[in-house]
Amino acid sequence: MKTENSEPTSAPLNTNPFNGLIIREREPENLEFPFSALNSFQTPTEQFFVRSHFPVPAIDMKTWRLNIEGLVNEPMEIEYDELRMMPTRTVTMALECAGNSRIFLSPKVTGLQWELGAVGNAEWTGVPLSEILRRAGVKPGAMEAVLEGADSGEIKKEPVSPGKITYARSLTMEKAMSPEVILAYQMNGEDLTPAHGYPVRAIVPGHYGMASVKWLNRILVIDREFRGYFQTTDYTLWERNNGYPIQLLPIREIEVKAEIARPALYEAVPANSVYRMFGAAWTGESEIAKVEISVDGAKTWSPAQLLGDSVKYAWRLWEYHWSTPAKCGRYTVMARATDTRGRTQPMHRDNHRGNYVITHVQPIEVEVKKPRNAVETESYHI
Amino acid sequence: MKTENSEPTSAPLNTNPFNGLIIREREPENLEFPFSALNSFQTPTEQFFVRSHFPVPAIDMKTWRLNIEGLVNEPMEIEYDELRMMPTRTVTMALECAGNSRIFLSPKVTGLQWELGAVGNAEWTGVPLSEILRRAGVKPGAMEAVLEGADSGEIKKEPVSPGKITYARSLTMEKAMSPEVILAYQMNGEDLTPAHGYPVRAIVPGHYGMASVKWLNRILVIDREFRGYFQTTDYTLWERNNGYPIQLLPIREIEVKAEIARPALYEAVPANSVYRMFGAAWTGESEIAKVEISVDGAKTWSPAQLLGDSVKYAWRLWEYHWSTPAKCGRYTVMARATDTRGRTQPMHRDNHRGNYVITHVQPIEVEVKKPRNAVETESYHI
Repeated sequence: MKTENSEPTSAPLNTNPFNGLIIREREPENLEFPFSALNSFQTPTEQFFVRSHFPVPAIDMKTWRLNIEGLVNEPMEIEYDELRMMPTRTVTMALECAGNSRIFLSPKVTGLQWELGAVGNAEWTGVPLSEILRRAGVKPGAMEAVLEGADSGEIKKEPVSPGKITYARSLTMEKAMSPEVILAYQMNGEDLTPAHGYPVRAIVPGHYGMASVKWLNRILVIDREFRGYFQTTDYTLWERNNGYPIQLLPIREIEVKAEIARPALYEAVPANSVYRMFGAAWTGESEIAKVEISVDGAKTWSPAQLLGDSVKYAWRLWEYHWSTPAKCGRYTVMARATDTRGRTQPMHRDNHRGNYVITHVQPIEVEVKKPRNAVETESYHI
Repeated sequence: MKTENSEPTSAPLNTNPFNGLIIREREPENLEFPFSALNSFQTPTEQFFVRSHFPVPAIDMKTWRLNIEGLVNEPMEIEYDELRMMPTRTVTMALECAGNSRIFLSPKVTGLQWELGAVGNAEWTGVPLSEILRRAGVKPGAMEAVLEGADSGEIKKEPVSPGKITYARSLTMEKAMSPEVILAYQMNGEDLTPAHGYPVRAIVPGHYGMASVKWLNRILVIDREFRGYFQTTDYTLWERNNGYPIQLLPIREIEVKAEIARPALYEAVPANSVYRMFGAAWTGESEIAKVEISVDGAKTWSPAQLLGDSVKYAWRLWEYHWSTPAKCGRYTVMARATDTRGRTQPMHRDNHRGNYVITHVQPIEVEVKKPRNAVETESYHI
């Protein structure tokens, strides 16, 4: 019989002993939360995944200003202390990288090989972007707000950048003026850490993580659709519908998704027992309506129990008590979420999504085994 | 002494004996005009370069209609006979592929390796697009008109397409409503050939060839900027200016450019003689103001003589009588054009243009030789 160590793993678990995050790339820093360790609604800052496109920029707080420019009546330079004295809003949101779960794609695609943990659910505090845009006075004809970070560099992996570029993404004016979008300077009640965007970052609830620009430097209001690197060459997907010829669109809103924290992939599960499956589910401009579990290869689905209250833009924890089979062997468990707009996770991958937005139902294979001793039994019941 | 045959050539001259065009690709058909054969203002149809992305589509003229859809008061289906009875306009324009001269890029880039002849200057007759849009009645909020061809397929070379797509490009409403943009059904006074877009193609003077959609099927008026494959993934360039973070924009307007037809690359030129240099120059929404020649490696420039009258959007032929040096050896000749907006061809390649818009001054190396016999002398004096 195989030992636990000989089980296949889907990613090299290059574990950093300091904070328990999985290192996907050292420079720039890209760190993943080991999703099977999920045990709270709010993700602690030190367990929150880190996605960086360039090294953490050196920022001199003596000269730092947030610049508001473009189609505004009154261009502004806001100092950090000034920003912190403005009206605040606190939001808890599921922040998921658009490339989360990429390792499960077959055939393998390029990009960081995230497993399940390029997602977290933190509490962010800052100034509504709408408040700042109202103070600057948006001119008629404004179509988008470009958010530009202080981070920059040259991207040498495909798709390569044309020399040195900055990180920048745009929001439609409609989203930019929505009250939930904030310029955050606190995460989980403390000042932002450098890895998470100190001094100020955007927080764009309902959108994938690439919209929540870190180390925010500049807000540029423009009269057209922005076509920066990170929304034309990268972070895009194909849309083939609504009567248009096929289009390459910037990835924006989060799609509905449930992830199983436990059992983990290839975990040993006790036979003829009750195992508490546990995980989280989230969606974009909507709320989670239900999470369903299948333990028979998608033939039948049973509702999981949603835990706590629904908080718009945050994830929802769920559990399901699985009566495990008496017969030992390989079994597959699946979870799928549906949101209040009626969107349900698809069973199959849509290749128009390229390397991103990986939300099709992910089968988790487990090994149902007879418990052999007390130590193992303990580890089964989490 | 080396013979003529041992001279390096810049491209395999895989000559098709039927029409003298150079075959760059057989399927789909991509054919180049041997530019050194230039000898007329108007390019004969059989010498006009062919750029196809997909095979020539099978079109049943019994059921063929041109569809006008989207943000219009009255969606229309126009029959071929009906179109031919509408008011016409004839335009002569320089139609250049945005990838023309690609073979001169170093390091080598992907894409068809056009030399100088992915350009032609034909006379086109058809119905102004503005006339058709006025009949359909463009609704307020219209931003672009998408022109879609009947040609379709899957692009398997990089950048690959997401499955089967159609050929489509958009024009801003401003350009779509400009009187020079026509839906052409005649080329050089005869019905279009299948290779050139029969029954109807767009002709977009001032824009690179990719805008002049062949086998036109549908005009879709939309309230946003179209992001089709051929203006996001292909036919784009980087723009790094005007205070925006870098953007990937669809290639549209033609940049100013002169090409030397004679001498051809590595041509033998008689020493101590007068050689008639000859070529053409063209630009986008402007006219050619001057063409200058350098025979000393860009140290000094002398004006070429512009031939004929200036016709907006057409190319301008030019000539220059070069007093060739007495000393034999390798010499470099160059031509550069300036347009009436003051734009001049750059000396160096801007890498932001990727694989397209190759307009930096191209040195043509020639071999200045003493004539050895009458046959050779004859070939020198063209």
